[in-house]
Amino acid sequence: MAEEKTIQEHEIGLSAEDIAKEFKEHSVAEFFKKNMQMLGLTGKIKTLTTIIHEYVTNSLDACEEAKILPDIEVQIKELGEEYYEITVKDNGPGLTKETVGKALGKLLAGTKFHRMMQMRGQQGIGAAGCTMLSQITTGKATSVITGTSKGKPFSAEITIDPKKNEPKLDNISELDKEFHGTIIRAKFKGVKYVNSEQAPMEYLRRTAVANPHAQITLIEPSGQKIIFKRTLKEVPARPVEMKPHPRGVAIDDLITLAKYSDTRKVSSFLKNSFDRVGDKALEELAKGISFDMNKDPRQLGWDEAEEIIKQFKKITFIAPRTDGLIPVGEERIQKSLQSIVNPEFLNVVTRKPSVYSGGFPFQIEVGIAYGGDAGRVAEANEEGVSQRKIEIMRFANRAPLLFDTGGCAITKAVQSIDWKRYGMKDFENAPLTIFVNLISVHIPYTSAGKQAISDEDEIMEELRLALMDTGRRIYTFIGRQRRLAEKEAKRKMFYKYATEVAYAVSELTGKTKKDIEQKLHSIVLKHLKLEEQKEKEMDQKSEMSEEEIEKEYEKRKAREKKDSEKKQKKKGISGGDE
Amino acid sequence: MAEEKTIQEHEIGLSAEDIAKEFKEHSVAEFFKKNMQMLGLTGKIKTLTTIIHEYVTNSLDACEEAKILPDIEVQIKELGEEYYEITVKDNGPGLTKETVGKALGKLLAGTKFHRMMQMRGQQGIGAAGCTMLSQITTGKATSVITGTSKGKPFSAEITIDPKKNEPKLDNISELDKEFHGTIIRAKFKGVKYVNSEQAPMEYLRRTAVANPHAQITLIEPSGQKIIFKRTLKEVPARPVEMKPHPRGVAIDDLITLAKYSDTRKVSSFLKNSFDRVGDKALEELAKGISFDMNKDPRQLGWDEAEEIIKQFKKITFIAPRTDGLIPVGEERIQKSLQSIVNPEFLNVVTRKPSVYSGGFPFQIEVGIAYGGDAGRVAEANEEGVSQRKIEIMRFANRAPLLFDTGGCAITKAVQSIDWKRYGMKDFENAPLTIFVNLISVHIPYTSAGKQAISDEDEIMEELRLALMDTGRRIYTFIGRQRRLAEKEAKRKMFYKYATEVAYAVSELTGKTKKDIEQKLHSIVLKHLKLEEQKEKEMDQKSEMSEEEIEKEYEKRKAREKKDSEKKQKKKGISGGDE
Repeated sequence: MAEEKTIQEHEIGLSAEDIAKEFKEHSVAEFFKKNMQMLGLTGKIKTLTTIIHEYVTNSLDACEEAKILPDIEVQIKELGEEYYEITVKDNGPGLTKETVGKALGKLLAGTKFHRMMQMRGQQGIGAAGCTMLSQITTGKATSVITGTSKGKPFSAEITIDPKKNEPKLDNISELDKEFHGTIIRAKFKGVKYVNSEQAPMEYLRRTAVANPHAQITLIEPSGQKIIFKRTLKEVPARPVEMKPHPRGVAIDDLITLAKYSDTRKVSSFLKNSFDRVGDKALEELAKGISFDMNKDPRQLGWDEAEEIIKQFKKITFIAPRTDGLIPVGEERIQKSLQSIVNPEFLNVVTRKPSVYSGGFPFQIEVGIAYGGDAGRVAEANEEGVSQRKIEIMRFANRAPLLFDTGGCAITKAVQSIDWKRYGMKDFENAPLTIFVNLISVHIPYTSAGKQAISDEDEIMEELRLALMDTGRRIYTFIGRQRRLAEKEAKRKMFYKYATEVAYAVSELTGKTKKDIEQKLHSIVLKHLKLEEQKEKEMDQKSEMSEEEIEKEYEKRKAREKKDSEKKQKKKGISGGDE
Repeated sequence: MAEEKTIQEHEIGLSAEDIAKEFKEHSVAEFFKKNMQMLGLTGKIKTLTTIIHEYVTNSLDACEEAKILPDIEVQIKELGEEYYEITVKDNGPGLTKETVGKALGKLLAGTKFHRMMQMRGQQGIGAAGCTMLSQITTGKATSVITGTSKGKPFSAEITIDPKKNEPKLDNISELDKEFHGTIIRAKFKGVKYVNSEQAPMEYLRRTAVANPHAQITLIEPSGQKIIFKRTLKEVPARPVEMKPHPRGVAIDDLITLAKYSDTRKVSSFLKNSFDRVGDKALEELAKGISFDMNKDPRQLGWDEAEEIIKQFKKITFIAPRTDGLIPVGEERIQKSLQSIVNPEFLNVVTRKPSVYSGGFPFQIEVGIAYGGDAGRVAEANEEGVSQRKIEIMRFANRAPLLFDTGGCAITKAVQSIDWKRYGMKDFENAPLTIFVNLISVHIPYTSAGKQAISDEDEIMEELRLALMDTGRRIYTFIGRQRRLAEKEAKRKMFYKYATEVAYAVSELTGKTKKDIEQKLHSIVLKHLKLEEQKEKEMDQKSEMSEEEIEKEYEKRKAREKKDSEKKQKKKGISGGDE
């Protein structure tokens, strides 16, 4: 606490020993309590959306692990001015008495952080952060009712001690009824329910788009009930725990894994701990290793681990396994976009899985819709005509990202494409909806608030390749559209003149106008067919193969690199003196 | 670890009890180790800049507390491909044997987090994060040599155990020489030194701009030495620990403060713990309080705290104290911008301190430079003429922010201004450098990486007001420039015609050309002076007062609110079924 004296004394400098007296340690809960904005819990509308995001993603993840078709009900009640009660009910596997406190009342505790598994949550922070927010804005505990397949369901009230980052459970009581699932109810002040692009309704709409197997009900403060119906009755595959892919693994990761391995030999440790490391890879590996592969992995030193990593880089591994990555799927994205924006043109691209630094496998899905209701409605222009602007729908592991748009790798990738080359002159104002879903066993979020993806090199590359692929298809479509319109105009013009020419020729030659007209028509038709043939050939030429796109991309990267180097040279140094 | 069996079993759902077995707790170090991107430690160039940022801000903070004129040397050595050694040496107060381990080897430990004080660091994460990065990319410890005003200097090697978030010190040895300050030396792989807009050189250049009292030397990998010279020999005031301002304090903050207070009565607790709460405020407060203010503060309940907060809102408190907020200062910003960009027009605005939610006082400084070398050099246009684009130099507590531009409140505020109204038709491509420094006892960063400021309402308002103020001044300047150019053209035209008219009239009347010319000139001059008078009156009219700007701002906000409500109504609900 600041004492009055410090103000008089603040012209005197402190020594290291004075400063040392101020040294303290803090819990992660204290840290996030003071920095709620880092959890996305800032701004009246954003906070409400983030709370619902945390609860709903937990419900979806739990249902997926339990192979249950999710039925989720979100109820938002207005209790007073900027004062709301949120209830989220699911039919998931439920929580046990041992886990419920930690799941909702301790930061950095949970089932997801340490497992390499594609889930929406991955930190063990979100729901406990909400408990903390409820408590600091209303002084109230978060209520939970939960029932598993064993024993009786129970209810409890949970708070958190920020100094210790420990949960406190009160009023635990068993319930004499059947219930399988979890109901969380919490109150929040300083939040506001509105119906806008960044609010709960839009969040749930997008959740439904990427999770057609879930039935989601929203009960608004007005009492209005909106149901996003399940359109797919099949439970998605249960996410599988993945092993890191040897490509991208760092020396330290290798040592940490080795330290906690229960194998006895380095060779079996490598085989057990990494994806795609089989006997053949081990054989190749052994060629470049100076130490005995029968060594105890817990004794693996830095230099030895470095040898392994170096040798890993020389081996051509197959791409990471795909069974741990569960995309939404081309067909489903297509169906969803079709039903929402009813576009003139629609294309979905799913890239092959790739790996980013750390050995984390990931995969990109991109859907692009053009025309129709695609794009978001922008303000009307000066003539009063409402316009459409590009809309980017971002998802990470099927969870919608609504905030921090500018800081997200997906947005950056979209902006880095030269859309003019794909026939879009004014890309920002095109009637375009771009759907991007990044799936991975670990999403590199820029912040604990999980609203933007960090622009890791490998992720940016895959995003750009997918976007360029869809861009190329749109280009063909827009080109065809343009040519069709031109052809239509040409045909009309030809016929118009044919009639006039026929009339004149008939006057001159005395032949019947009808005969001449017919002859002219057949000449025109022949001409138009020839043109069509040429166009088809052109189209075929413009349909670049995947390899061609990648080549084009490599060329562009090289060019950009050269440009930026040139720029740097030009810029020189300013503001510094030798 | 994933076992082979899980792959076969992944079509079977898990029960709550199965899932409970996977429950684990994690240290904050483990969390950030897996999410280095949240600390700004991602990307080859960004990582190197962030490392230097963490060390240099610590040095500047320490010097400021010790009232020492900072002398900081940053040396970057290239050890191999994407492999560098960073050494940062300062003449600060040094670290003691008790604190050095925690300062560099434990996350969430330090002197800054719990004190309401304007400092560059505020989390106790940054430097320890660097130690972790060095260790996981190179397997090496971070070396430190430090000497305080007491005892002998010593050297040590520091690593961190991520599982426990605990430092480990090795090879501690006392040195037989005089040294006062700290030298940190660490090695990193996967980083790269370049000279670009987001690289160490630019970071240090901007640090020098906002810290003219510091002498900063950079030794590049090439051996080239760049010195940013100290231009101000005066040590800034030592930052004072502030008390929260009653405006903006939340109920929970009040209870937490009360719980740890060593006062005996609520009344004395309030007086001691809050800024601007004196006897008069207490008297007013007592009027609306239902309980005894002599009560033990540790017994303060939620409802009682709520009564106090409600009553706080009714009292008109004076603005927060300013002695804890240390701006760069108008004169120094002016001098800095003048020397760097040598603009045609330069204006600096310092807003009065304000408070944002949580009771944190903050203050905005904005400098705007137009013309000259202002703006950043963009790619040459099609005619090969190099162009200038707007440049935003963002600072938080005098530390430059180079990354996450799009996600920062400063950028958002700049983009939210309708610059056309201030005479800038193509704002993005204007030769404009905007300097913005936000100072506060707690900067609400969007992420632990401290590169972007969260868009808290009160901060956005102050930013916008400051920018509109500078905008108005630029408008007057651009208007005057335009009118001066027009007048010059008019004058030239007048004189040109005057000569010709004089010739013609002289032919007609027989009077000497010279006489007629002189008469015409005086008529023209009189005419131009009248115009000038009118313009001056116009200028005076256009110079709105601060109140007028604020009024204009309120009007605009109301209009924007109305517009957005209209839009929402128009948008309706799509994608959901009743």
